[in-house]
Amino acid sequence: MFATVLHGPGDVRYEQVEDPKILKPTDAIIKLSATCICGSDLWPYRGLSPREGPAHMGHEYCGVVVEVGQEVRAIRPGQFVVGSFCLSDNTCPHCQFGFQSSCRQREFMTGAQAPYARVPLADGTLVATAEMPDAEMIRHMLAASDVLGTGWYGAVAANVREGGTVVVVGDGAVGLMGVMAASQLGAGRIIAMSRHETRSALAREFGATDIVEERGEDGVARVMDMTDGVGAESVIEAVGMAQSMQQAMGVCRPGGAIGYVGVPHGVSFDGQQLFFKQQRMLGGPAPVRRFLPDLMDRVLRGRIEPGKVFDLTLPIAEVAEGYKAMDERRAIKTMLRVDA
Amino acid sequence: MFATVLHGPGDVRYEQVEDPKILKPTDAIIKLSATCICGSDLWPYRGLSPREGPAHMGHEYCGVVVEVGQEVRAIRPGQFVVGSFCLSDNTCPHCQFGFQSSCRQREFMTGAQAPYARVPLADGTLVATAEMPDAEMIRHMLAASDVLGTGWYGAVAANVREGGTVVVVGDGAVGLMGVMAASQLGAGRIIAMSRHETRSALAREFGATDIVEERGEDGVARVMDMTDGVGAESVIEAVGMAQSMQQAMGVCRPGGAIGYVGVPHGVSFDGQQLFFKQQRMLGGPAPVRRFLPDLMDRVLRGRIEPGKVFDLTLPIAEVAEGYKAMDERRAIKTMLRVDA
Repeated sequence: MFATVLHGPGDVRYEQVEDPKILKPTDAIIKLSATCICGSDLWPYRGLSPREGPAHMGHEYCGVVVEVGQEVRAIRPGQFVVGSFCLSDNTCPHCQFGFQSSCRQREFMTGAQAPYARVPLADGTLVATAEMPDAEMIRHMLAASDVLGTGWYGAVAANVREGGTVVVVGDGAVGLMGVMAASQLGAGRIIAMSRHETRSALAREFGATDIVEERGEDGVARVMDMTDGVGAESVIEAVGMAQSMQQAMGVCRPGGAIGYVGVPHGVSFDGQQLFFKQQRMLGGPAPVRRFLPDLMDRVLRGRIEPGKVFDLTLPIAEVAEGYKAMDERRAIKTMLRVDA
Repeated sequence: MFATVLHGPGDVRYEQVEDPKILKPTDAIIKLSATCICGSDLWPYRGLSPREGPAHMGHEYCGVVVEVGQEVRAIRPGQFVVGSFCLSDNTCPHCQFGFQSSCRQREFMTGAQAPYARVPLADGTLVATAEMPDAEMIRHMLAASDVLGTGWYGAVAANVREGGTVVVVGDGAVGLMGVMAASQLGAGRIIAMSRHETRSALAREFGATDIVEERGEDGVARVMDMTDGVGAESVIEAVGMAQSMQQAMGVCRPGGAIGYVGVPHGVSFDGQQLFFKQQRMLGGPAPVRRFLPDLMDRVLRGRIEPGKVFDLTLPIAEVAEGYKAMDERRAIKTMLRVDA
C-alpha cells in the first residue's frame, strides 16, 4: 500500500510501503475510516525533534477491524473502533489507576496516516461501537483518538470544576478541545487566549466566554484584570513552549491547577519559584483510553462535535500539503480522507 | 526584653531588644507560652540564605494575648491563641480559597523566639481556644503553628487518601509530621525514608508502617520493590534538596501526587521530564490557617501528640545551643521554654 513517510525536515512523502501485518498475537489490523495530522507531527517535520531514518507517520485513527491476532478476545473483525495514540493493555496497575499513557506495556502508535494500520495491544487500546457510525460521525470519532482526549485530560488535570474559571493558553487544536472539555465539565467562565480570528471564533463556538488577544505579560495582565487580580483556578497549557508556560503560570491563582498537555520543548522550572507560586501542576501524554468510552458516547449522542476542529480535509495522497498548511498555520488541523 | 537575634552564620544571641508594641490597629501582642526553632531557621544560620543585618528570629508560636490594636475584633486579651507562621487576613480571595499562605496581605511572622511577640493581622491569623489549655498541651499546640500544619499540608497536597500508599521523604520534624498527617488521613501504608534510629522510631510511633533506610537510587529501588514496581500514589517531600526531590519523583507512580513542603534549594525541573513522569505536583508555604482549627481540636481531644517531635527543650536563654543541636542533628526540633 501507499502510506505517509517523513524522510527529513519538510520532506513528507506518500509512497509505497509494506502492508501492515499481525506481528504479535495481541495485534489488530484496521482499515482506517479517516486519519489526520497532529500538531506534534510538526516537531519532527520542522526538524525540532530529530529522528533517525524515515518515519512512518500518524497516530490518530479510527476505522474497521479487518484482522486480529490469536490472543485478541474483545475486538472482532468488522467492528468500528477508535483507539488512543498511546497503546495500552488496560489491565496493568497504571492502566487501572487511569493512567493508561504510562501503561507498563506502553507503545506509541505509528503509521496511521495510511489506509491500513497495525494496532498493538488491540484489546486494551481499542474501543468498539455497537454499530457502524454514520459517515458524518467519522470526523468526530477521529478527533476523540487524540486531540479531544488530550484537551479533555488537560481540563481534568487543571481540575476544571462546575462554575469555575478556566484559562486556555494555546489556540491550536488541543487548546480548542480544551475549551470544549472545560465547557462540557461545567466551567462557568472560559477565557481563551487567541489572536487568530478563525480560531477564536471556533473557541467561542466550543464554549469560550471570553477571548484575550494579548500575549505574554500583556496577556497575563489582561486576564488578571478580568479576574479582579485573582487569576484562574484552572489553566490548560496546550502549547509546550517556555513563553506559553510562563503565561499559564502567570494567570493561575495560588492553589489553582495547571494541566499542561503541550509536550514541553525548552521549558524548565525553578523549584523555589514553583514552590512559592503554589500552583498544582499535572501534565503528560493524555491517558485518552480513560476518557474514550465517555467521549465516544458524547459524540454519538450528538452532544459534542469535536471534528469541527478539522478545517482542512484532503485526500491522503496530498498529505504533504496537509503538513505544509498546518506548518504555515493556514490550517488548524488537517483531516486525511482515506477512501478517496 | 531579651530576644533571639541572628547576627550572622552560626551567630545566634539572646540579647536585649526593644519590647514589641502595637504598630498597626490590626496587631496583637502575645505573651508566648513556648516557642521553638524551625528547620528553616537553619538556612540563614548556616549562611545558605544570606540576610542583610541582624534578624529577629522565630515564627512558631502560641501564647496568651496581652494587648490588641483598635481594629481587632475577634481576638481579646486573655485568650490563648495559636497562629500560623504565615500571617493572613483570612478574608481575601486567596484566603477564602484555602490558600492563606498566599494572602494578599501576607507577611511572614518574625521575632517569636522571645517572651513577647507582635502578631500582625491578628483577627485573620490567630485561632483562640475556649479556655486555657493544660500545661502539657502547650507543646502540642505549639507544633500546630507550623511544623504539624506544614506536614499536614504536605499530606493534603500529596492527595493522601483512605487506604492509600504514602512515601515520606525526609525524617526531619516536618517529615515526621507528614507521617502523622498521613496516618490521621487514613493512609493504609506509610513508608518513611529514614536511617536515623530516633527519628525512625518516632516515625513508627506516628504511624509509619515501613522504614526504608536506603537513600538515593537504592532507596528508590527499595520502595519500588516494596510496591511491586508500581510506586506510591502519594509522596511527601519534606527536605527541599535536589537529591530528596529526585527520590520523591523516583518513588511516585504515574498519576500519583507529590506534596513538596521543604523550601527548594538548588532544585530545578526539566519540563519534558516532568511531563513524561506524569506526577501531580503541589508545594508552597503551608496554608496552616486552613487546617489550624481542626489541628487544635485534634490536639485538645488527645487524638494526636505532635509535640513529641520536640526532643530537646531548653530555656530560651540557651537558644544558641538549641540551634547548634539541630544543626548537628543531635536534636530533631528544639522547644524553648519562655517562663523559665
